[in-house]
Amino acid sequence: MSDFTEIIKGRRSIRKYEEKEVPESALQQILEAVQWAPSWTNCQCWEVLIIKNPETRAKIQETIGPKNPATKAVVAAPLLLALCAKKEVSGYYNGQASTKFGDWNMFDMGIATQNICLTAHSLGLGTVIVGLFDHDKAAEILKVPDSHELMVLIPLGYPAKISRAPERRKIEEFTHEETF
Amino acid sequence: MSDFTEIIKGRRSIRKYEEKEVPESALQQILEAVQWAPSWTNCQCWEVLIIKNPETRAKIQETIGPKNPATKAVVAAPLLLALCAKKEVSGYYNGQASTKFGDWNMFDMGIATQNICLTAHSLGLGTVIVGLFDHDKAAEILKVPDSHELMVLIPLGYPAKISRAPERRKIEEFTHEETF
Repeated sequence: MSDFTEIIKGRRSIRKYEEKEVPESALQQILEAVQWAPSWTNCQCWEVLIIKNPETRAKIQETIGPKNPATKAVVAAPLLLALCAKKEVSGYYNGQASTKFGDWNMFDMGIATQNICLTAHSLGLGTVIVGLFDHDKAAEILKVPDSHELMVLIPLGYPAKISRAPERRKIEEFTHEETF
Repeated sequence: MSDFTEIIKGRRSIRKYEEKEVPESALQQILEAVQWAPSWTNCQCWEVLIIKNPETRAKIQETIGPKNPATKAVVAAPLLLALCAKKEVSGYYNGQASTKFGDWNMFDMGIATQNICLTAHSLGLGTVIVGLFDHDKAAEILKVPDSHELMVLIPLGYPAKISRAPERRKIEEFTHEETF
């Protein structure tokens, strides 16, 4: 697929959205992308919340610092997704962490998040990954049980403004032959 | 792009590879996919090692438990990628962690890894994400400095055997309306 790299390169963080609704078929395709994400021993430790209620969104917005450039998007985008992960499953075996990193649910959620953002972009939709907020307060609002971590919020909708791509490190700056 | 979801759904963990080399143009496209991954405040905390040397690979293999189904692939695939992350940059502001999760480099590496795996699959190449090994021993072999974490190994090559997709949770099993 020659234009696959164009999807990877064309995705931007979208912070302004049109009022136009997200079609149900597009949402289903995005959820299917989560379903097919790889995860530690296929543990599939994700849970996805689809939040429309304006009152809930206003409360969630209060858990985000006003300096976060995505604060408005959490309320203004037609849909808000919240990605949660089960604790102590990914990276664990028989109740014990298998590596020095402990819980791998952040790694798994990174993978699932990218599947969401790329699929959305392939459908002409925009997203922004919001990780900077008071996770415990937001989890309480969204009734996330102690067994799970609320990790990121992802506003979703048609982009009203597509920002310029931020600067990137050159490939040769981060690539090493044989050893670091 | 109608077949984008097919790329997401068609990616498998590949553990047996053909001897055929990975074309330089394909490797460049995969590195470009890392370059364009989103990251915490665009910190781009990734470093990619491209490992061909059979002796290095044999040493790396010793850091992986024999029960890991990807142990052989680390030596047998035409290329081995190692993804490292800078510490205390992602999720940090002025030297302080911005959230309860501390370092977000695992999340960022999850995103970058998925860009690698999807781009490889779109080019007819296979990958497998190896996270279960002795990270400190492997980091020593690969001369990864203390400022960085070696996180995952990713064998890369043309698939010799494509395994069946493992079972997936149904979308309705992991989707919640409004609250968890």
